[in-house]
Amino acid sequence: MVYALRHFPGDLYPINPKADEILGFKVYPSLTAIDGSADLVILTVPAKGCASVLVEAGENGAGAALIISGGFGETGGEGKTVQDEILSVCRRYGIRLLGPNTAGFGNPKAGVSANFTPWIGQLKAGSIGVVSQSGAMNLILASLIHSRQLGISLATGIGNGADVGVADVVEYLADDPDTKVIALYLEGVREGRRLYEAVRHATEKKPVIVFPVGEADIGDFAISHTGNLMGSFALKKAALIQAGAVVVSSSNDLADAANLLSKVRLKAHPDPGVGLLTGQAGPGMVIADYLRSHSVRLPELGPSTVERISRLIPPMTFIRNPVDTGRPSPTFRDVMLAMAEDPVIDVLVTFAIHEPAVIDPVALFGEIKEKIRHPLVFGTAGFPEDVLPTQEGLEANNVASYVSPDRTARATRALIEDAKAAYRKEQRDKEGPGDLIPVDPIEKAPDEASAKSILEKLGIRTPSRVVCRSHQEAKKGFVELGPPCVLKILARGITHKTDVGGVYLNIRTEEELLSGLAEIDKIETTGEKRYLVEEMASEGLEMMIGAKNDSSFGPTVLIGLGGTEAEALNDVAMRLAPLSLFDAREMIGELKSSVLFDGWRGGPMYSKEELAETLVKIGGLISGHPEIKEMDLNPVRVYERGLTVLDAVIICN
Amino acid sequence: MVYALRHFPGDLYPINPKADEILGFKVYPSLTAIDGSADLVILTVPAKGCASVLVEAGENGAGAALIISGGFGETGGEGKTVQDEILSVCRRYGIRLLGPNTAGFGNPKAGVSANFTPWIGQLKAGSIGVVSQSGAMNLILASLIHSRQLGISLATGIGNGADVGVADVVEYLADDPDTKVIALYLEGVREGRRLYEAVRHATEKKPVIVFPVGEADIGDFAISHTGNLMGSFALKKAALIQAGAVVVSSSNDLADAANLLSKVRLKAHPDPGVGLLTGQAGPGMVIADYLRSHSVRLPELGPSTVERISRLIPPMTFIRNPVDTGRPSPTFRDVMLAMAEDPVIDVLVTFAIHEPAVIDPVALFGEIKEKIRHPLVFGTAGFPEDVLPTQEGLEANNVASYVSPDRTARATRALIEDAKAAYRKEQRDKEGPGDLIPVDPIEKAPDEASAKSILEKLGIRTPSRVVCRSHQEAKKGFVELGPPCVLKILARGITHKTDVGGVYLNIRTEEELLSGLAEIDKIETTGEKRYLVEEMASEGLEMMIGAKNDSSFGPTVLIGLGGTEAEALNDVAMRLAPLSLFDAREMIGELKSSVLFDGWRGGPMYSKEELAETLVKIGGLISGHPEIKEMDLNPVRVYERGLTVLDAVIICN
Repeated sequence: MVYALRHFPGDLYPINPKADEILGFKVYPSLTAIDGSADLVILTVPAKGCASVLVEAGENGAGAALIISGGFGETGGEGKTVQDEILSVCRRYGIRLLGPNTAGFGNPKAGVSANFTPWIGQLKAGSIGVVSQSGAMNLILASLIHSRQLGISLATGIGNGADVGVADVVEYLADDPDTKVIALYLEGVREGRRLYEAVRHATEKKPVIVFPVGEADIGDFAISHTGNLMGSFALKKAALIQAGAVVVSSSNDLADAANLLSKVRLKAHPDPGVGLLTGQAGPGMVIADYLRSHSVRLPELGPSTVERISRLIPPMTFIRNPVDTGRPSPTFRDVMLAMAEDPVIDVLVTFAIHEPAVIDPVALFGEIKEKIRHPLVFGTAGFPEDVLPTQEGLEANNVASYVSPDRTARATRALIEDAKAAYRKEQRDKEGPGDLIPVDPIEKAPDEASAKSILEKLGIRTPSRVVCRSHQEAKKGFVELGPPCVLKILARGITHKTDVGGVYLNIRTEEELLSGLAEIDKIETTGEKRYLVEEMASEGLEMMIGAKNDSSFGPTVLIGLGGTEAEALNDVAMRLAPLSLFDAREMIGELKSSVLFDGWRGGPMYSKEELAETLVKIGGLISGHPEIKEMDLNPVRVYERGLTVLDAVIICN
Repeated sequence: MVYALRHFPGDLYPINPKADEILGFKVYPSLTAIDGSADLVILTVPAKGCASVLVEAGENGAGAALIISGGFGETGGEGKTVQDEILSVCRRYGIRLLGPNTAGFGNPKAGVSANFTPWIGQLKAGSIGVVSQSGAMNLILASLIHSRQLGISLATGIGNGADVGVADVVEYLADDPDTKVIALYLEGVREGRRLYEAVRHATEKKPVIVFPVGEADIGDFAISHTGNLMGSFALKKAALIQAGAVVVSSSNDLADAANLLSKVRLKAHPDPGVGLLTGQAGPGMVIADYLRSHSVRLPELGPSTVERISRLIPPMTFIRNPVDTGRPSPTFRDVMLAMAEDPVIDVLVTFAIHEPAVIDPVALFGEIKEKIRHPLVFGTAGFPEDVLPTQEGLEANNVASYVSPDRTARATRALIEDAKAAYRKEQRDKEGPGDLIPVDPIEKAPDEASAKSILEKLGIRTPSRVVCRSHQEAKKGFVELGPPCVLKILARGITHKTDVGGVYLNIRTEEELLSGLAEIDKIETTGEKRYLVEEMASEGLEMMIGAKNDSSFGPTVLIGLGGTEAEALNDVAMRLAPLSLFDAREMIGELKSSVLFDGWRGGPMYSKEELAETLVKIGGLISGHPEIKEMDLNPVRVYERGLTVLDAVIICN
């Protein structure tokens, strides 16, 4: 650690009772021996020795501490107690703590490499802020950024995050004027809601790009690593996107996206248009294919642009967008301008293989940048040693470049995702989130009939029904509602009614009713058993709505295609609640099965709007009732107009 | 081109009627003026001038030609005629033609850089064979391989592929002793079946890795590029995997996978076990998460291995697999050996950040390689200039290394996919493909009843039925079959019977029958209208089976979850036919919805076996009947035992 910090421009006090000198620095026997208060105390002593050092630090008036050592919360049991102990010392003295169990952090501009891996000291100062739960991933991301000739503003490994967590650093970087983009590596999230809020506020000011892991079951390993549970990957990802972050799926993609987004950012836009100009068709195909299959639009150029370009390049080329000039000629520049001036284009991506004889990208972009206000992305290919001077020249002009069509495409996608996320946030904020909906106190374990009554209070339609205590009442109910009816068991503890033979559909005669009642009477229950007689709903599209108060992310809402078989395909969309109507519409649109609403295969249209309104109501309910653990409306039958909730389960804490 | 070829070790004859000398080479006025026969004639003249030059080449006795120029088939119309013309000249003289419309090829070992981009001449000779439809992607792949300090055996751009196509080069590389792995970039495929066979044979000898594009709709651009239609991306991908290729999704992944697979290959294995040893938990999580979420197994180590490792590393670490040693110590080597010696491990992946003070990977792998026969993969992170010597040292030991956890994981996955594909091929070959099934000649446009009769000849169950020409016959049929019945319209040209109101389910009374008949009578048809009365099938799991004779890939079979709603989710699996039973079982297993067969949510089990047998039969039928354009069995109702095809459409050419 002393070696890593040897060039620190301020005062450095190595402390060790057994040494006089380390690497030429005078060594102090204890914190009490140093002059004045330390800004930061770094602990590389074993877990059990940390508390007493922190007390010394507190007495010294130190502002912050970094604990490198492991052996705390991540080991469970006793380690957890030690972690609680050091945290309480820190709280007592007002010390902010990074770690324990982290390699540390680096701030090149300030000359601080408080990290046990010495090469963090060689990082260049720049505009990318890195936050990582894992100390090693912090180093890896920093090195990938450095490999791209880019600099960092801060690179922080969180470790166990006993005090300073990911959300704190995101909040800090959001306000840090040296940071233009935040790059975040994320494992399990303990305080998801706080992170969501931190990212949401940060993206108002600068892009946040996240590489989350945990898609597969790596939970045990994750706990052993930083003591954090992994939680639901799908929920984590949905929450980050909802907060306005761009989610990527590798550390290389994270570094590439951070490169572009540290240089340019699009204004909020529902669906920006990318213009793609390529000197070679093959890489143009690779880029266009990637972008289109990831919902990025390459709009067809206007007729006047096509006309203008057709006068600039040979007749055999493709000019609708992508524009394939064939091997670049001196008109390449004019084609770029023509594309950029077409109003359908918001971003201009240019690809050209390294061929100094036919194209000089540094000169080209140097000139073009003055004429075009759109974000520019440049992709190329060639030997690293040949391409590097071009990349450095472009970097000096603040133009991001990538040595492969794939990387060009992935970074471009991140730029577009950021603008789309900003648009969604704008729309949501314009509308405001749905209100929290407090209804009467909810009983501890509402049965289906009570659950449906709660929904009715929100104005959500459920079938007409009669709750019956006897066969006699059921017969009366049947007559009241008229055939066809549905007969269901009503008993606490039985939520999967179909599985126990407790549901009878399409009852048309009293005989059928009695036979159903007889079957239900055979089911064993612990408490009182009643019968639910309901009107039979007509056919429609079956969806499901779920909601829960997640231990990390708080109130959340989920929608998916209903029915057992569809559930196996796991076509769902999630959001943190409360929702705006805009969110709810987006959730429905996100589903693969959303095509079913719009006359799929000549079928009927189904009302998305009423479904969206129902989602907003459920979001309000779950947000207003922390005592609800989870709820499940399945199926929700959607019609051309309106919908009916056929079954509802509410489980309280 | 002369510049690119200036170091060619054989005789080079520049030909141009207007020049005496190019770059110091004597220039000849025409092909007739050179001594002897040319091995290769390279044409850089306009499209219309090519035919006469090829005639000269033919008279000269030239063996092969390369046409760089564009303006042929890719432009449609007249260009296509010119392409046919040059092809017929080549055929007449027995000249093999590369191109037209390609940048050319390079063979570093032979010193041939027949490519208009001069830097192809700087490529190192090595063991990776590159094939690309796009000339530019050929260059890009070669440069990405070169950037990884690796060499190529051959790098070929196919262009329009008028004569020599992708399949030809794959066949050549399969037998080329210098080539250890084939890396292929693929757009549209004209002769899919031939490519399938070429890849299938090649993978017997060496790995084939493919990066296909065309997931999004980029068809128009593709045609303008090489004149090839894109076809179905899903089918192309399925066929390549069936042929034993590893399919990747970027050019960087292609280069990284080629690196590893040029060095090591696993034996055929149904599901190889990866051991992951990491010096840092974070990157270990990234690798484990990627592998697990892409169906790569990290098996738990045996108790004796765990016991052995626990004596080697500190107690706070995770040792079940991944094994996280914490910062590498001198015992790292022994942990590697312990893991490799566990019988559950087939591949050992090691990750350690670049820290020369604690680990020397070159020395470590140099020693370990002698002791371990398993394939080894090394991942690291650090500044490129620091890491390069390590990578070169490992390369000299034939160990592939990657500078990031993601790239390490992706390359490892490719290694595993190759072994799994080889296993599937072994199983299929052991069993042999299903027989072609020729039944009686199939009438031009079979109606539902005829289509079902064809299925019955194959022993596939369909509902009992009566074809009726009158209400009277229908009433008789209804009595014969007994309630409940299904009534359907039977008329040529009406395939979507439900959409026109031509299907009535669950008919229980003669009254209901007559009302259905009356409705059917209202439907307008062009030809004869008949009625189909069928027994009503009981409830079960609805699947669909499709088959077609694809214009590029020939006979193919598809399976998916049945029902309109499920179709929107597009959960399907495809194979080229004929199929073995092994293939058919795999297809079912590939579906997300395959969980529905195994008692999903406490539901019944459904017979996969009979469904697999049906797939094999349909594969045999479509293979034995090229006159069938496509067929659609939807729904196929699957039961705990057996299945019934409820509707069948066969469309002939």
